[in-house]
Amino acid sequence: MKTIQITEESRKNLQEQLLKRNPSSYGEFEEQVAQIIDEVKKKKDQALFSFTERFDHAVVTADTILVTKEEIEEAYTLVDPELVEIIRKAKANIVEYHEKQRQYSWFDSKPNGSMLGQKVTPLKRVGVYVPGGKAVYPSSVLMNVLPAKVAGVDEIIMTTPPMRDGKVYPVTLVAANEAGIDRIYRVGGAQAIAALAFGTESVPKVDKIVGPGNIYVALAKKAVYGHVSIDSIAGPSEILVLADETANPRFVAADLLSQAEHDEMASAILVTTSRELAEQVSKEVDRFVAELSRTEIMQKSLDQYGYILLAKDMEEAVETANEIASEHLEIITANPFEVMTKIRNAGAIFIGEYSSEPLGDYFAGPNHVLPTNGTAKFFSPLSVDDFIKKSSIIYYSREALEPVHEDIIKFAAAEQLTAHANSIKVRFEE
Amino acid sequence: MKTIQITEESRKNLQEQLLKRNPSSYGEFEEQVAQIIDEVKKKKDQALFSFTERFDHAVVTADTILVTKEEIEEAYTLVDPELVEIIRKAKANIVEYHEKQRQYSWFDSKPNGSMLGQKVTPLKRVGVYVPGGKAVYPSSVLMNVLPAKVAGVDEIIMTTPPMRDGKVYPVTLVAANEAGIDRIYRVGGAQAIAALAFGTESVPKVDKIVGPGNIYVALAKKAVYGHVSIDSIAGPSEILVLADETANPRFVAADLLSQAEHDEMASAILVTTSRELAEQVSKEVDRFVAELSRTEIMQKSLDQYGYILLAKDMEEAVETANEIASEHLEIITANPFEVMTKIRNAGAIFIGEYSSEPLGDYFAGPNHVLPTNGTAKFFSPLSVDDFIKKSSIIYYSREALEPVHEDIIKFAAAEQLTAHANSIKVRFEE
Repeated sequence: MKTIQITEESRKNLQEQLLKRNPSSYGEFEEQVAQIIDEVKKKKDQALFSFTERFDHAVVTADTILVTKEEIEEAYTLVDPELVEIIRKAKANIVEYHEKQRQYSWFDSKPNGSMLGQKVTPLKRVGVYVPGGKAVYPSSVLMNVLPAKVAGVDEIIMTTPPMRDGKVYPVTLVAANEAGIDRIYRVGGAQAIAALAFGTESVPKVDKIVGPGNIYVALAKKAVYGHVSIDSIAGPSEILVLADETANPRFVAADLLSQAEHDEMASAILVTTSRELAEQVSKEVDRFVAELSRTEIMQKSLDQYGYILLAKDMEEAVETANEIASEHLEIITANPFEVMTKIRNAGAIFIGEYSSEPLGDYFAGPNHVLPTNGTAKFFSPLSVDDFIKKSSIIYYSREALEPVHEDIIKFAAAEQLTAHANSIKVRFEE
Repeated sequence: MKTIQITEESRKNLQEQLLKRNPSSYGEFEEQVAQIIDEVKKKKDQALFSFTERFDHAVVTADTILVTKEEIEEAYTLVDPELVEIIRKAKANIVEYHEKQRQYSWFDSKPNGSMLGQKVTPLKRVGVYVPGGKAVYPSSVLMNVLPAKVAGVDEIIMTTPPMRDGKVYPVTLVAANEAGIDRIYRVGGAQAIAALAFGTESVPKVDKIVGPGNIYVALAKKAVYGHVSIDSIAGPSEILVLADETANPRFVAADLLSQAEHDEMASAILVTTSRELAEQVSKEVDRFVAELSRTEIMQKSLDQYGYILLAKDMEEAVETANEIASEHLEIITANPFEVMTKIRNAGAIFIGEYSSEPLGDYFAGPNHVLPTNGTAKFFSPLSVDDFIKKSSIIYYSREALEPVHEDIIKFAAAEQLTAHANSIKVRFEE
């Protein structure tokens, strides 16, 4: 791994290198996606099924689009029962954590006969997209469905592309069923996103679409945003380990690689105050890369976006971590809790040497859908918040309005809105 | 006003008519906006000042871009002191309401030595855009700045286009100063948005941009989204009054017009169970239109997007209101609180005959930046939530990790991520 002393310039260059991973234009795909959306909007099921045949090479009809109870039952016979048990344990932890994120309606009334409040309502219907392909991530199904479930969403439906024989990966079905999904539609790609956004004869329109997907899915979500709500579009995975001389270099190296293995655009960064640790971690990383699978991906990721940054003290290290605003941040120092209080920007913060990143990916409970590419400066992890919305409540009695009505009329007049003023005035006319 | 009996078909047609106001493509402007952003990103101040000269016909330099203390003091001498007092009263109400929206960090620890939590951090720097032109809205300055202030944002800066003489409207300066803005930059348009998003020598990069603007500003905000955060892009204003035979037709008519006067695309809808009320309101509307100013705007808005909908009962009326998901919803019925409990979708809900919409626009305290065009189904009013973000906190001791580490390794293996598995494994190797 490249080892660099932190300077103002090296920090700036690093930021620019990382932001390169943020693709600013996908012209060629955008047009194709716009066409797919347009077709599905117009021809509904007919277009949806014809795209499924063209892109997924699978025949799906109005009669077969829904995954049946029998298929879900069959899926359980095909998945390792031990994995099913682990999924259930993970689910319990995820639900327990997300329950704590619930928000409640409140109101505040005053003796003059006025009441202000905020009403919290869950979204009515949510669509979760689950990618097909070789990489099947049951953890991702849990992380996207369960917050909606905890929020109290009436109806959670899933779309996922079928295999050539029309089937869906058994482990996806099991995870979806454990998470409590209401219905699963075997369609994928931009056409599935369009169906969720506008509705077809078979697929109902939803209020929000969440879940990861390839470039077509991401662009389709972006295109339908505003018409429905979407989650934020995830970039490549990232880890930043903040460590001092007390850290175990083998732990640090293993953790850096746990993100580097995701894809070639993933970024793994160690920020440390210890030159000795830097050297040891670099050696351990080389040793692990040779031992583990996915070597090529890890090596490319490390070459392009892997860094060991040397800080002159913990203050500079923290400042650098805040500037990078990593998706995952591990703190492996003598006083990790103390350091945590100074962290401003990170998706998830892992404290101490036994809180390794995969613990959060699969098991602990907090969501693994996290802001990437510096967006932890202003975005939050996926949460129950994403599946509720709020309405303001305003009640004033005549007695409450009377003493302030002249003020409101004057304010409206100052903004030259006479009908606004009139709406107050009319209530006090003789 | 058009009076229509509610049927499945009339509801569908109405929805389609309202959604027409949602402009799906602005091709010609988009390219121009992209060019402006690109120039400012590359040439920074130089481009910012040259666009200001071209579009606002005002000369601004690095030395004069910041509004001075003296200008703010001067502004106070130019604004009606009574209006300043009203602005202060409104501010107090807005702050009091938004204080109740504050969210706090929490953690939950267990005796096995584990701790999970959620850390709430305010955004560091926020930019508020304030439009120039004839319509000066001090209420909008308060509503955009104060939630950020209550959230604890470190630095809140404002940009607003200068007049030809380089000055800024006095009432904007007074409202900004009362709201506690840190600095005001006299630049506007897409070039100001670009400066806020990428930073120039004079204008610092922010984490989030909020505030209304013309089509150039809206498109620029959309273009920089992801690089920074933005608020949602507001559509034309809307009111829906839900009323029964107990409602005062003059009040209802006045309230419908308070939104119709905003612009020709604004929508004013009465949903009622009473044909008699429908007839009376229609007459009162005609009478007010003749009396008030902004007649042409109101008439066009009513012709295109004004409706009186007759419902067979309160249940159908409520269902229709939920389907339209109006920005503002007034409930003027015999039991307005009871009806409120059945409302699922609305930006702000005004209860009873004295809670007219302008009370909320200016004075009561809840935010007047609300979701429009049906987006109240999944979006919320602007709030303190928009100026904070969250980080997950995960701490497991060795004792907490040990009993579950095999499960995590198996989960990772099932997803074929061996480096993830390794990061757990390495912590328990001999």
